[in-house]
Amino acid sequence: MKLLYPTSLKLDVQSIEGFSVDLYPYDVTVPIPEEHVDAEILVTWTNTPSNLKDAASRLKNLRWIQSLAAGPNDVLNAGFDTSSIAVTTGSGLHDHTVAEHTLGLLLNAARRFYEMREYQLQRKWPGHLGGAQPDRPAGSFTTLRDARILIWGFGNIAKTLVPHLTGLGAVVRGVARQPGVRAGIEVFSDDKLAELLPQTDALVMILPGSESTRHALNRERLALLPKHAWVVNVGRGISVDEDALADALDNGEIGGAALDVFQTEPLPESSRLWTTRNLIVSPHAAGGRPQGAEDLIAYNLRRFRAGQPLKNMVQTDFRPKI
Amino acid sequence: MKLLYPTSLKLDVQSIEGFSVDLYPYDVTVPIPEEHVDAEILVTWTNTPSNLKDAASRLKNLRWIQSLAAGPNDVLNAGFDTSSIAVTTGSGLHDHTVAEHTLGLLLNAARRFYEMREYQLQRKWPGHLGGAQPDRPAGSFTTLRDARILIWGFGNIAKTLVPHLTGLGAVVRGVARQPGVRAGIEVFSDDKLAELLPQTDALVMILPGSESTRHALNRERLALLPKHAWVVNVGRGISVDEDALADALDNGEIGGAALDVFQTEPLPESSRLWTTRNLIVSPHAAGGRPQGAEDLIAYNLRRFRAGQPLKNMVQTDFRPKI
Repeated sequence: MKLLYPTSLKLDVQSIEGFSVDLYPYDVTVPIPEEHVDAEILVTWTNTPSNLKDAASRLKNLRWIQSLAAGPNDVLNAGFDTSSIAVTTGSGLHDHTVAEHTLGLLLNAARRFYEMREYQLQRKWPGHLGGAQPDRPAGSFTTLRDARILIWGFGNIAKTLVPHLTGLGAVVRGVARQPGVRAGIEVFSDDKLAELLPQTDALVMILPGSESTRHALNRERLALLPKHAWVVNVGRGISVDEDALADALDNGEIGGAALDVFQTEPLPESSRLWTTRNLIVSPHAAGGRPQGAEDLIAYNLRRFRAGQPLKNMVQTDFRPKI
Repeated sequence: MKLLYPTSLKLDVQSIEGFSVDLYPYDVTVPIPEEHVDAEILVTWTNTPSNLKDAASRLKNLRWIQSLAAGPNDVLNAGFDTSSIAVTTGSGLHDHTVAEHTLGLLLNAARRFYEMREYQLQRKWPGHLGGAQPDRPAGSFTTLRDARILIWGFGNIAKTLVPHLTGLGAVVRGVARQPGVRAGIEVFSDDKLAELLPQTDALVMILPGSESTRHALNRERLALLPKHAWVVNVGRGISVDEDALADALDNGEIGGAALDVFQTEPLPESSRLWTTRNLIVSPHAAGGRPQGAEDLIAYNLRRFRAGQPLKNMVQTDFRPKI
């Protein structure tokens, strides 16, 4: 049995040995060499679309694709036969990095570091942002302490983020398909959004990309946020109606937005988002550094060899053939 | 007995009533009115130097000054007779806000939000900061996870900051006059700096302003930091040799610096720090929002009335006369 692993990240290959599986490196930016098209297992990370499309047509023995990305979209869009090939994601490998970046974006919003930078570039002291300040003035978002933060999309990243927010004094609630209490946080179903959004100082969006999340944050829902509220999106660009968001910002209907993801990436030079008032552009930088990839691969490799369901499998109730 | 409280912040005056002390508001930007120069207690917050100097010469009955600032320098420089007047600071009222701002500066350094802003202003996508990244490349400071953070000046702000840093995976050590273990962190005396600085990814300075801390971070000590190390100063500007710091940055001898305090504030337009490479200028914005001022005043008011030593007293072994 043959496993191909990507050279697009540093993997400690030794820690996935020992399964009577032959391990071969491959370049994710070019077609897979003829000698390796018999591989049964493909590990992917930042593969080019053409590499994936080519693999989908040429790797006839493929039984399992382990992506190291948080979501499976690039693999699912490449044309693999997912009725016979198990697809597992790198969900969990990006929790810490995305949580850290999200915290950074929230602190940028509250402490207005982006505005300080603009003053600095003009050699101007932004006195209005320093010195004596009112403590938590009503109708503002100037600190995470007592800030009401709503996390929409409450998976592992949210769970990792929560203690950092509550540690700084924030009051956190969640929205997800399944309501309940998770990681000590009350999570509501999205039919409660109309009630929750008006009570939000910062809305953190960590929704996956799919047709069902398309423009989840639309014009109508944006209008429910308080005038000082910030929107932080570290999920997928498709979940925000960018035009509606830019309108809300330009019209002063919300306080600001920090976006790490966009409907089109890189953001085109012509986009109005570059100069929208109080909008922070972060270049899809929250994740991008999988952590613990070897442990996940080894864990799933054992399960695959034993004919057991795999972790992070995209297909429900799918048991890969060995 | 008469207490004057400042109108420069919102105080819940009711919560300091009940001590047979008459409470009067005053404006910290003009001389204290003649009718109030008999006050025994003065609470200060962002008083102008001329207000304080005037008060020092006219408030003959003064027995106690409760500053709400973290340090007593403005009061001590005004000419009050501190052999007969107790001076207490607002130490502790700023721990949370300064810790939050410091965390924000550290995340700005690691995640390079300041650089993203410069790209945004040019409508350019900073692709090198996003997408797939090496995970913790050696000789870099790109995340707080496993980052070696040295906090120089280990008081209450440091203790408040520590759990946020360790929660993100940082490895924290401290430097202070008194070595020992505090808040679970090993704190070294400053004669260990030569050993500690080369093992530091980010140096956080929270030293008070005094002649003894003048240029504590000098050219010689800067040279001991790794090339990728960041310096974050949220203590007092005097503790850093700004010229040596700017040289180290311009010559690429350290990674960057985020300064919230400066030797001269506001930073003069002519300062080279505005354009020093990888230097973040924050306008003394870390604190400036005292929290829990009423509790501290009420606590000390009771002790003052009972002839007990006051909390946060600047003078050692001083017991105010009632």
